[in-house]
Parts: sequence; structure tokens; C-alpha cells
Amino acid sequence: MSDKNRLELFREKRAEQNKKVMDLDHLGIKRFFNMDTNTYRDGALSTQTKELLGLVASSVLRCNDCIDYHLEQCAKAGSTKAEIVDALNVALIVGGSIVIPHLRHAADTLDFLEEEGTLKTD
Amino acid sequence: MSDKNRLELFREKRAEQNKKVMDLDHLGIKRFFNMDTNTYRDGALSTQTKELLGLVASSVLRCNDCIDYHLEQCAKAGSTKAEIVDALNVALIVGGSIVIPHLRHAADTLDFLEEEGTLKTD
Amino acid sequence: MSDKNRLELFREKRAEQNKKVMDLDHLGIKRFFNMDTNTYRDGALSTQTKELLGLVASSVLRCNDCIDYHLEQCAKAGSTKAEIVDALNVALIVGGSIVIPHLRHAADTLDFLEEEGTLKTD
Amino acid sequence: MSDKNRLELFREKRAEQNKKVMDLDHLGIKRFFNMDTNTYRDGALSTQTKELLGLVASSVLRCNDCIDYHLEQCAKAGSTKAEIVDALNVALIVGGSIVIPHLRHAADTLDFLEEEGTLKTD
Amino acid sequence: MSDKNRLELFREKRAEQNKKVMDLDHLGIKRFFNMDTNTYRDGALSTQTKELLGLVASSVLRCNDCIDYHLEQCAKAGSTKAEIVDALNVALIVGGSIVIPHLRHAADTLDFLEEEGTLKTD
Amino acid sequence: MSDKNRLELFREKRAEQNKKVMDLDHLGIKRFFNMDTNTYRDGALSTQTKELLGLVASSVLRCNDCIDYHLEQCAKAGSTKAEIVDALNVALIVGGSIVIPHLRHAADTLDFLEEEGTLKTD
Repeated sequence: MSDKNRLELFREKRAEQNKKVMDLDHLGIKRFFNMDTNTYRDGALSTQTKELLGLVASSVLRCNDCIDYHLEQCAKAGSTKAEIVDALNVALIVGGSIVIPHLRHAADTLDFLEEEGTLKTD
Repeated sequence: MSDKNRLELFREKRAEQNKKVMDLDHLGIKRFFNMDTNTYRDGALSTQTKELLGLVASSVLRCNDCIDYHLEQCAKAGSTKAEIVDALNVALIVGGSIVIPHLRHAADTLDFLEEEGTLKTD
Repeated sequence: MSDKNRLELFREKRAEQNKKVMDLDHLGIKRFFNMDTNTYRDGALSTQTKELLGLVASSVLRCNDCIDYHLEQCAKAGSTKAEIVDALNVALIVGGSIVIPHLRHAADTLDFLEEEGTLKTD
Repeated sequence: MSDKNRLELFREKRAEQNKKVMDLDHLGIKRFFNMDTNTYRDGALSTQTKELLGLVASSVLRCNDCIDYHLEQCAKAGSTKAEIVDALNVALIVGGSIVIPHLRHAADTLDFLEEEGTLKTD
Repeated sequence: MSDKNRLELFREKRAEQNKKVMDLDHLGIKRFFNMDTNTYRDGALSTQTKELLGLVASSVLRCNDCIDYHLEQCAKAGSTKAEIVDALNVALIVGGSIVIPHLRHAADTLDFLEEEGTLKTD
Repeated sequence: MSDKNRLELFREKRAEQNKKVMDLDHLGIKRFFNMDTNTYRDGALSTQTKELLGLVASSVLRCNDCIDYHLEQCAKAGSTKAEIVDALNVALIVGGSIVIPHLRHAADTLDFLEEEGTLKTD
């Protein structure tokens, strides 16, 4: 049994499966992945703001893997826990109570990020 | 390894994560949770009918955690197994075959509720 | 210019287009339409309750045409305006603020049904 | 008042608004549009099959403008009316009765395409 | 025939129908509307950022009325056209080509806002 | 601990839960399951094409269980790996980056099918 926590296991599986997707060797898929990465680069809006947009989009569309990814990126881009939670509240209002299980999941992931010391809490 | 069944483990995790959500300490989120609870109180429609509405909404939006929650509440509010299944059939027709995996999940949860003796079966 | 109101025009267009769907002459589609109609017949749950379920499902999935259809059927099955509005509130909480434009549409349709005298208001 | 039918008016508005999107002059958006076009080119699957895939995806996601676009492309790529209707039936089963208003819309658009002589009917 | 443009007509209809929703006189619905308004007030995140979040959420959930509302609020909160377009690009990547018709609609609405002089363009 | 892989465990659970759904003994649900099976029979379109349609519909609606089922059926109906991947690319473009976790899942399932020797790879 692994000593890794849920978030670490997710990162491993994600990396391994991303490799499998690349190995499918489809030009359109590779281009999409490349474009996806570029989307969050600094532009008219900063990476920090765009990662919050990605988080809210992922939350209202209710995808836990996408939520975990964008939570990590939000923390990395410098958003504080309070800012991230305020963004999740927008997702909850727009998306309704069906978002609640994903809000629970996000609260759990925020705990892991806080333990790792990668999340600003003030 | 725990002796608890899937439904019992879900309840534990749900309670623990709901606590984490409350600990995020966001006024908007707390108000939403409060409003959510109030929605299913007896009003022009009874709690029993409103829990069936919540179950069907959760089913067509395809959220297993929400389905489990509303199945429990439906049983508690006095709906029989046959009534709950008739509601799930409406969700299946409105939402289509993409709902089937969630119907399978619901059938499984109904078994747990029946074993616990919390579901009326006639 | 027609003297018909929005709801009357919708009914006309709906009937005309349903005919076109039948004229596509596909056995699977015809069977689905037949099954759809049967779903709301009295069973373990009454037609009245099932139409409320159909209304909430249509609202969280955000389909105005389906909302109009089920509002008519709810009124016909004997639900009062207050009961229908209480069901729409469940849809609003589950589905979030993205449901609001459809709630506005429903409020408008309820006015037409009230004018026609087909909606019980007490 | 225009003599143009609904489909012709849609094409005009679509072309005009696509120009407005290009005029937003955002590199990411332009690249996405380019990639979108390339997706339906002959590859491991033919354009004809991929347009049917695009039609079914648009139908279960319930977007009339996308349905109209892919119906046109399906006809252009050589699918017969019967094949298109068989694809729409898959969308109806997967997506459920909430797809019905879009099936009505599609039946209407197929009539326009048949009148124009761009749809193979046997 | 009215001289008002699409956006002005939308505002009128929206105000009129919001009044109808309030006249339904349901406490839960009124509370939800109140909470919805409060969500976008300055908090850990500014109103300006939260309106961009609302815009992206509305775009991936594909609701034109919500998009128009949040575009107005984004302009009012001081976001420039380039910032708004960069946010819409995030929505396009997360939500896919099914978002394109709504991107077209947004480009059209941005033109109306620019004509009115309520949108910062540099 | 079982020696079965993820796909084998899914098949077992799926069969077991389908039995539970049948045991609910609801005529409407049974008819829906029957109709669902018939939908993919050869008709104006071949089973092979219709399974690709089912796969894309499942992918844009983001249901892993449905994706696994249709991947199996696609392989069984004779589609090659390259054709299946080309179909998944259409789903990615239509559905956006929110589909990526499901694309990862599909890449993983394709590996299992290849190991089993049930997937044509040229």
C-alpha cells in the first residue's frame, strides 16, 4: 500500500495517462493539448486570473480532476486560499447545489495543498 | 479494512468533508447550505414530493453523491421503493441512456437502504 | 401579424414539427415518443407528481420548450400555481443561477396559463 | 420583410457574426477556429463519418445552431436523409426526451435542405 | 416596430420578467435572487474579477441571457474589451466548439456595448 | 485482492448492477433498456458507425462507464484503434478541455482492449 496521499496519487496517474494520450499519436489531439497549455499564459488577463476562470469553469461543469488541476495552478500562480474560496462560491451560486459534492472535493484538495505548503493562506 | 458498506463509508466521508466546507468559513457558502436545507421543508409541496424532485434533478444531472443523498431522504420522508423507482424512470426517459450508470448506482443504494430497514417496500 | 400569444404560437409550431418528426418515419424515434408519453401515466406515482418531476428535470436541464410543455401538463393534472412555483424553487436551488432565465420564462408562461383559466391559483 | 427562409437567415447571421469573432483579433480564438475546421477533414475516419459524429455530439449537447451547421455538412459530405435520421435516433436514445425539441428543429432543417436539393433522399 | 436594439430589448424583457418572478412571491426564490446579487460584491476577490468568473461560467454552461448580463457587468466593473475577450477564450477552450455560437453572440453584444460607450477598449 | 484488471472489474460490476436494475421490475425501465440495445443494430447506418456515434456522445457528455462500454462495442464491431482515436478527437474539439480526463480514461481502456487482443490496431 502506498504512503502517498490522494493528491499525489492523482498527479501520478494523471502524468501516466497523459503519456498514454500522447502515445495515441493523433496530431489534432496533440495540438489541442498544446493550445490548452497556451491558453493560461499571461495575456490581456494574467495567468493568476485565468486559472481562477479555469477553476470556476471546471466547477460548474463538475469535473473533479479538472478542479484539482486548476486548484494546484491557482496556488502556484499566487492566489490565496481566501481568493480561491471566493471563486468557488461564484461557481456554487451559478451552478447550484449539484456543485456541492465538488465543493467538498475542492475543500479536501485545499487541505492537501495547505499541508504541502504550496497554498498562501493570508 | 473497514467492515462498513459503501453507503456507510459515503456518509462518513460526506460528513467529514461537509465540515471542511464549513471550515472554509465563507459567508456566501454557509448561506447557500442553509438555503439548500430549507428548500426541502414542507411548503406548498410536501417534503416527500420535494425529495422526489431533488432525486430526479440529481439523476438527470448525473451526480451519484446527490442521488445517494436524496434516496436516503426519500426513504426517510416515507416514499416507497416502487414510488422511488417510478421517479427514476422519469429521470431515465428525460435524461436518456447516459443516465443508466446512475440508475445502476441507485439500484445498488436502494439495496443498502432496504437492508438497513429504512426503505418501505410495499 | 398574428393575434396569437407566445404560448399559442409555441403549441402550433410544436404540433407542426412533431408531425415532421413522425414523417421521418424512423421506428426507433416513434417508439421513443410512445414510451415518453406512457412514462407520465398514473403508476406507483400519480400523473400529477410525475409531471412535476418532468418540470424540474426540464428546468435543471434548461429547456424552455420542455418547461412550457410540462407547465401545461402540470396545470392540466391539477397542480396549483403555488405547488408549481415550489417545484421551480427546487430546480433553482439544485441548478443554480443559470436556471434564472428559465425561471423568468416559466413565470411568463404561468401568466398565459392563468389568463386561459387552465391554472388553479388556490 | 425578407423572403429568405429560416436556414438562409441563419447562414447570413452566422457568417456576419463569425466575422465579428475574427475581428476580436484573439490569437487563441483564431487558432481554435482553425483547428475546429481541420478536425472534420478526412483522416482515419472520413469527413462523412466525422460530420455524423459532430451532428450527434451537437444533438446530445442540445445546440440548434451546431445541429444546423452539421446537418448541412452531413448533406454536403454525401450522407442520405435516412442515415442522418438514424444518427439522430442514437442522439435521442443517449440524450433522452430533453433532445426532442432539437429533433423537431432538425426535422425542420432537413425539410429546408431537401427543398434546396442538397440532401440525398435515397 | 421598435427602434431599440437587441440588447435594449433584452434589458426591457429581463426587467419585466424579473418582476413576474418576484410576483410569484416565493420566499426561497426571493432569497436566492438576493444571495445571487451579493455574490458579486467585493470580497476576497473584486467585483471585477468575479464578474469575469460569472461570464466564463455562463459561457461554458451556454446561456446567452446570462452571458449578456455578465458582459454588461464586466464592462461596468471596468474590464477592458481585450480582457473580456481573453476570458471568453478560456471558456472556448474549456467548453469546446459547442461554445462557438455563444461566442458569436458575445461578440455581437460587445459591439452594442461599444456603441453605447460603456465598454473600455484600451 | 483480485487479479482482474480495471476493465474486467468494471464488466463484473456492470453485469451485477444491471441485474439489480432488472430486479427493480419496472416495465418502463425494461422497455428503455430493450430500446437502447436495438438502437445500435444495423439500420440505415451500420452498427460500426452507430457505436462510434455512441462513443462520441458518451465522451462529450463525459461518462466513463458509457465510454468503456462503447469502446468495447466499437472494437467488437470492427473499428480500428486509429478510427476510434479519430472519433475521440471530434469529441475533444466539440466538448473542450473538460473532456480531457475522459480522453485519458479512454486511452487507458484502449490499452486493456489491445492487451486482450480485441482491438484492431492497423
